[in-house]
Amino acid sequence: MAEEVEAALHTIFAADTGIYQRRGFQRRVGFGRRPALIHIDLANAWTRPGHAFSCDGMDVIIPAVQRLNDAARAKQIPIVYTTTAYAVTAGPNTDMGIWHHKIPVEQLKLGSPEVAIDERIAPLDGEQVIVKKRASAFHGTYLAGFLKANGVDTVVITGVTMAGCVRHTTEDAIAEGFRPIVVREAVGDRVPGVVEWNLFDIDSKFGDVEPLDRVVSYLDELTPAAADDLQGSSAAISA
Amino acid sequence: MAEEVEAALHTIFAADTGIYQRRGFQRRVGFGRRPALIHIDLANAWTRPGHAFSCDGMDVIIPAVQRLNDAARAKQIPIVYTTTAYAVTAGPNTDMGIWHHKIPVEQLKLGSPEVAIDERIAPLDGEQVIVKKRASAFHGTYLAGFLKANGVDTVVITGVTMAGCVRHTTEDAIAEGFRPIVVREAVGDRVPGVVEWNLFDIDSKFGDVEPLDRVVSYLDELTPAAADDLQGSSAAISA
Amino acid sequence: MAEEVEAALHTIFAADTGIYQRRGFQRRVGFGRRPALIHIDLANAWTRPGHAFSCDGMDVIIPAVQRLNDAARAKQIPIVYTTTAYAVTAGPNTDMGIWHHKIPVEQLKLGSPEVAIDERIAPLDGEQVIVKKRASAFHGTYLAGFLKANGVDTVVITGVTMAGCVRHTTEDAIAEGFRPIVVREAVGDRVPGVVEWNLFDIDSKFGDVEPLDRVVSYLDELTPAAADDLQGSSAAISA
Amino acid sequence: MAEEVEAALHTIFAADTGIYQRRGFQRRVGFGRRPALIHIDLANAWTRPGHAFSCDGMDVIIPAVQRLNDAARAKQIPIVYTTTAYAVTAGPNTDMGIWHHKIPVEQLKLGSPEVAIDERIAPLDGEQVIVKKRASAFHGTYLAGFLKANGVDTVVITGVTMAGCVRHTTEDAIAEGFRPIVVREAVGDRVPGVVEWNLFDIDSKFGDVEPLDRVVSYLDELTPAAADDLQGSSAAISA
Repeated sequence: MAEEVEAALHTIFAADTGIYQRRGFQRRVGFGRRPALIHIDLANAWTRPGHAFSCDGMDVIIPAVQRLNDAARAKQIPIVYTTTAYAVTAGPNTDMGIWHHKIPVEQLKLGSPEVAIDERIAPLDGEQVIVKKRASAFHGTYLAGFLKANGVDTVVITGVTMAGCVRHTTEDAIAEGFRPIVVREAVGDRVPGVVEWNLFDIDSKFGDVEPLDRVVSYLDELTPAAADDLQGSSAAISA
Repeated sequence: MAEEVEAALHTIFAADTGIYQRRGFQRRVGFGRRPALIHIDLANAWTRPGHAFSCDGMDVIIPAVQRLNDAARAKQIPIVYTTTAYAVTAGPNTDMGIWHHKIPVEQLKLGSPEVAIDERIAPLDGEQVIVKKRASAFHGTYLAGFLKANGVDTVVITGVTMAGCVRHTTEDAIAEGFRPIVVREAVGDRVPGVVEWNLFDIDSKFGDVEPLDRVVSYLDELTPAAADDLQGSSAAISA
Repeated sequence: MAEEVEAALHTIFAADTGIYQRRGFQRRVGFGRRPALIHIDLANAWTRPGHAFSCDGMDVIIPAVQRLNDAARAKQIPIVYTTTAYAVTAGPNTDMGIWHHKIPVEQLKLGSPEVAIDERIAPLDGEQVIVKKRASAFHGTYLAGFLKANGVDTVVITGVTMAGCVRHTTEDAIAEGFRPIVVREAVGDRVPGVVEWNLFDIDSKFGDVEPLDRVVSYLDELTPAAADDLQGSSAAISA
Repeated sequence: MAEEVEAALHTIFAADTGIYQRRGFQRRVGFGRRPALIHIDLANAWTRPGHAFSCDGMDVIIPAVQRLNDAARAKQIPIVYTTTAYAVTAGPNTDMGIWHHKIPVEQLKLGSPEVAIDERIAPLDGEQVIVKKRASAFHGTYLAGFLKANGVDTVVITGVTMAGCVRHTTEDAIAEGFRPIVVREAVGDRVPGVVEWNLFDIDSKFGDVEPLDRVVSYLDELTPAAADDLQGSSAAISA
């Protein structure tokens, strides 16, 4: 992004922040007690070059996700990956919905290598890979039920794209009752500018945008007690 | 089911019907213009003997589903199959939710032959197979979005179990805005009685219970025009 | 219900229980740590005589709900009431969906005294009254988001009707990730038999059916700590 | 917005459009056959000065909405208004969810004049007013079920704010299977820049941004046949 454009964006963010602060917006949702990591669409069609969906910045995003995974796995925190893929990409029985009238989702075939999670951040056994059909990781998936049943109150969000799936997922997360934390170094897109303005909108209204170091520290400081407390390890009390 | 028990059920259904009729219940939702078939959990764990989830009556259910599929495929009507399966069946990261505290869903492993659709009614290319985590085919899945985007207004429901997934799916179907038609000969369960009383409750409040012959006639009489009209074949008008 | 019919139902429940027990069904979801009460459709159209929706058994149900409310209010446990009501009950802009093609929901006018909560169990300030359009208290409402954001893990369900709204709400509750507890003395219906068989199906597959005394004891034994712990009183940790 | 900032935004939009066009994004969803109007949060707290939620541009937005309403009412097209309001704005039983940790929703009291729809565009009898708790008009409301049951395939979206409720509603609309049309002159916000970049993101990925004149022409040209065709006027066929 050209320097003068970036400067212009920062000028406008500063003006808007003044208004938001006077009105009582841009508060902090804060970190809760039981986080999960949600990695949005870090599959080959997005993380590798040469595809209509390819995104920039993987040299920063992939290592950031690796650090988050290391920290989360050490505490047995749930990790969820999403990908977007379709069983039927032509004709009247398609699962693409209306979206193929807007963007080229017909290039995302279920079962193809393009929609597999990037092996540099490969899921381990016991980590969920959710195939979604829409932008939000919550829409038409079992994500909300999975998180709720497992006692999660905070979702740490990474991935792509910032102007599409990451933003919609963040909006749905706070709507569902989770605290959204978007990791600044771990999100990206394929066109200039949209990362900046979507992070600005989110931090103003929908979730906290936090630097990687701070999120890793938060994960590192979680006590094992928090992990024991999850539903799966039997939270029920007999009356 | 013993004859005297069946007689007792019919005694009570008759009494209840009297009350419902006087109160204005038990109306007909009727058949709409664009149906889809939804086959609930007709996978091996339910259709074959020897599994905790095995159901009775497959000698009638399977041929009924075959007849429905033949009629539907002739008109390019969407066919959706569901199965219920889990990636993680132990520990704090499970996708079973709370349900394994009630029923033995830990026996339904994602990717196992038990959760594959019965090959006697195998899906063709271009038919959707939805893996669900809960009883309802709508809960945590893309089913509603798929049907809506494809212009469907009526769902013809078959499968098992009547007291579980079929009933919950039917309730959700009418809630979402679809006309539910439950095919009497094409639904079953694993314990006596529950088919009868759940069909009674559904026909009183949530959807129409119809005989197979009538549903096949309805499908046979649909005009190709209805099929052409689906979203996938481009319903948009330019202004 | 005639004695011989009741006897027949119990014969069939015993046979089914044998099968369910051998297969590993009919487990206990148990009581969690943070309950909410959900009172389904205890509004005048259902609790008073003379309406198409009138139900039986209010001499037992209303006092049961009063006892539950007393116990819950002493511990600041969230209480949610639902009613079912429509702004537009004729013509193409109705909010009744497909349901009026099945049951007489056109008699439930938004703002009428019939759809107001029965004053014998009137909501207090700070208790939610949710107007729903469908059978389930979760469908098309903010209930799931409300409960999740407030840290609730268990829903204690009362009200009417057992074959309709109470059953669908219970099924949705466990699907969403809450532990459903249905209070035996606090649920009812308008036709014979349906309370018994729906409680049987629920206890087999979707939630625990518990006697009033046991549920009140559970509420009485909850520590204030559990209440303090709710989201509203600020669960966030600063990293 | 300062001229140089606007120029910078247009520079970046042009660059991004080049990439999107080469990749096959920025397609047109087009107008469908059965639209509904959705007016987001055009209540006094947003449309009048002096409130934390007050927005700019009402001199253009209000007349635009009036024109759309006139055209829609002439064709009996469903009109839906939303407002955002809370029954409990303090303590552990709040319906604000997590959102009050981010923005000042505690100022939106259910039943106050601030959350009533602006009388300049007052709803008529038979038009829906939906009270929502979250940004999206679809989240935790009966909107999707209402639209589906009434045969709607296209949603014409107006209102505020562009960076919040209008954007999230648009994303959910296409996810649910509706064609979203955002009316350029009929949307606004309270801080500079966010209208422009959110319209850009939406038109690239989630819905069509169209000028008021074109949308009014589309409504004017709809035939009464389309209106007759709605579910409410009985679409069912007897088999």
